[in-house]
Amino acid sequence: MMTERPRLTPAVADVRRAIRENLADLSADSLVMVGLSGGPDSLALAAGLAFEAPRAGLRAGAVIVDHGLQAGSAEVAQAAADAARDLGLDPVLIRRVTVIAMDGPEADARTARYGAFEEVISELGVVAVLLGHTLDDQAETVLLGLTRGAGATSLSGMKPINGVYRRPLLGLRRSTTVAACADQGRAPWNDPHNDDPHFTRVRIRQNVLPLLEKELGPGVTEALARTAEQLQLDAEVLDNLAAEVMPTVLIPVRGESGVRSATLKISELEQLPDAVLNRVIRRSALEVFGVSLSATHTTAISRLVTDWHGQGEAHLPGIRVERQGGQLVLTSPVTAQPEA
Amino acid sequence: MMTERPRLTPAVADVRRAIRENLADLSADSLVMVGLSGGPDSLALAAGLAFEAPRAGLRAGAVIVDHGLQAGSAEVAQAAADAARDLGLDPVLIRRVTVIAMDGPEADARTARYGAFEEVISELGVVAVLLGHTLDDQAETVLLGLTRGAGATSLSGMKPINGVYRRPLLGLRRSTTVAACADQGRAPWNDPHNDDPHFTRVRIRQNVLPLLEKELGPGVTEALARTAEQLQLDAEVLDNLAAEVMPTVLIPVRGESGVRSATLKISELEQLPDAVLNRVIRRSALEVFGVSLSATHTTAISRLVTDWHGQGEAHLPGIRVERQGGQLVLTSPVTAQPEA
Repeated sequence: MMTERPRLTPAVADVRRAIRENLADLSADSLVMVGLSGGPDSLALAAGLAFEAPRAGLRAGAVIVDHGLQAGSAEVAQAAADAARDLGLDPVLIRRVTVIAMDGPEADARTARYGAFEEVISELGVVAVLLGHTLDDQAETVLLGLTRGAGATSLSGMKPINGVYRRPLLGLRRSTTVAACADQGRAPWNDPHNDDPHFTRVRIRQNVLPLLEKELGPGVTEALARTAEQLQLDAEVLDNLAAEVMPTVLIPVRGESGVRSATLKISELEQLPDAVLNRVIRRSALEVFGVSLSATHTTAISRLVTDWHGQGEAHLPGIRVERQGGQLVLTSPVTAQPEA
Repeated sequence: MMTERPRLTPAVADVRRAIRENLADLSADSLVMVGLSGGPDSLALAAGLAFEAPRAGLRAGAVIVDHGLQAGSAEVAQAAADAARDLGLDPVLIRRVTVIAMDGPEADARTARYGAFEEVISELGVVAVLLGHTLDDQAETVLLGLTRGAGATSLSGMKPINGVYRRPLLGLRRSTTVAACADQGRAPWNDPHNDDPHFTRVRIRQNVLPLLEKELGPGVTEALARTAEQLQLDAEVLDNLAAEVMPTVLIPVRGESGVRSATLKISELEQLPDAVLNRVIRRSALEVFGVSLSATHTTAISRLVTDWHGQGEAHLPGIRVERQGGQLVLTSPVTAQPEA
C-alpha cells in the first residue's frame, strides 16, 4: 500500500546513490558488512545498504562493536543490532572488544574496533566493510592533520575505498545522514563522546569549523574535503615513485634474530627529489623497524644526504641513523650494532 | 665605543643569520634590494641586510613602494626611505604606483607592487629582491589556500627563494622581527590595513590562528608552515612530471592571429596518473589561453578522459573543451572554431 512505503526524500536518495556507486564494482553474492554504531551516519548507511544490496545482488549484514567504554554500552549495541535486523540485514553480529591503553583513547578504541572487523572479515569472507564517515569527518581529519604539520600524507584524510574498507558517505554532509534517518523514521543513538570537548576532534567540530565558516565564508568544510581528494591523488603518485626505488636503495641486514639493521645507498638517494627521498626514508623505518617517523625526524635523516657536513648519529625514537662511507646505516637502539 | 654598538640580542642574531644563509649563493658585488614598507618585518630585514651585505661583499639598497591608497602614504614612504638611508642602504628608491581595480584590493596592490619591483630589477640589474614575509605570513597563506580547496599548489604557500624574490625571514616568527626592531631602537610603521577585518588575511591572523592555537595546542602556526614546506617539495616533483610530458601531449593549433586552439592526445593522457593529468590540463589552459582553472573546473575536464561516457562540451570561464575522436579540443570562447 502507498502509505506504508518509506518516503524517498532527497537525503534518502543521496545516501542510496552514494552506496550504489561505491559498491558498483563488487561481484554478485559478495558479503558486505556495515560497521554500525547506531549513530546517524552508520544508521543511515545501514538503511541505505539494506535497500541497495538486494538490488545489486549482494548479501548485506552488520557488525556492531561494543567497546565497553561507557555505561550501558551493551544496551546501545543491542539496540543497534535490533535496528539492523529490523532493516533486514543478515548476519548481524555484536563483537565485544577490550580497549588497551596505548596511544590515546580515540586511537586505542580504533585499534580495538578494526581488530574486531578483521576477525569478522576472515571468519565470514567479507569483501567490504562499510564505514559511515562523512564529508564533515573528512574536513575534521584534514584539520587534525594540518595542525600536526606532517605534510600531504596526514592531510590527505580518508579514502572512499581503502582495501576492504569503504566509505560511501564521504562525499555527503553529516546533515544529510541525520535527515535520512529522520525521513525514514529511524532514531539514531547520540554518542556522548561526540560532545565531549576532551577530544580534539570534538573541539574541531564544535569550535574550529564553525569559526572557519564564519570568518572565511561558507563552503570551508567542502573545500577541506576537496583538498583531501587532491592530496590523495598527489600522494599516490609520490608513494609509487618511492615504492619503485625501494628495492634498489634499501638493503636489510639480517642477523640471528631477524632483521636488525638496514643500509641505504647514498649514491642512489642523492638522485631522488626531496619529496621522494623523504618517503623512502619513512618507508624504510616503517618496513625494517616498524617505526613511524615524524616529518621533523624524517628531515633530520634526509639532511644526512642533502646537507652532509659530518653530522653525528641521529638518535630518534626507535631508530638510530648514521652516515658511514657511502651508506646510511639504520639500526634499532635495542639491538646490537650491525656486523657490516 | 662599546656604548654605541647595537645590542646583539637573540632576535637580531636570528634575523641576521637567516639573511646570511638565504643570500649565501650570491656572487660578490651583486646588488640586493629590500622591499621596504616600514613595517616591523621589512624594517628588521632592512637592518639585517645593512649589517650582513658588506660582510658578504654584496651591495644593498631598498625600494619603497608608495601604493597611494592611504592618506599620508607619501610621508610613510619618505620615513621608510629615511630609515633605509640611516641604516646605510644605497640606493634607496621610492616608487609611486597606481593600483588598478581588477582582482580585489590585496591582489591589485600586489600586482602594482611587483610591477614596480620588476622595473627596478631591470633598471639597476638587481639580482635579489628581499621580502619580509615571516612564518606567520606563511601559516596564514596555507589557511587561505586550504579554505579554497585547490590542493597542494595553493596550500604550499610562499617559497624562501623564488627566482629573483627571496624571503629570508620565512622561518622566523613575526614576534622575532618586532623584537629585532625594538632591540635596535628602530620604530616600525604599523599599517592600519593590518588591523582591518575587512581583509580575510587579517581575520585569519586575529581570529582564526589564535583560536586554532587555543583549541589544538600551541605550535599550530609552525605546523602550518611545516606543511607548506612539505607540499612545496611534493608539488615540485609533480609539476616536473607534468612539464616532462607536455611536449608529447599538447599540440597548439595556430591560426591567423596566433594560437587559437589546442589539442591534447587522449591516448597519452590516459597513461597519466590523475595528479599529473590534472596538472597537464591546468598548464595547457594557462599556456595556451592564459586561463587559470579552478580545481573543480580542472576535474570537469579530466573526467572527459577518466570517466568518458559521451559528455558534451565543457563550457568554463575563458575556455571550451570538447572530446573529439582521440583528442581533447580546447578552444577559446572568444575566437572562431579551429580549422582542425
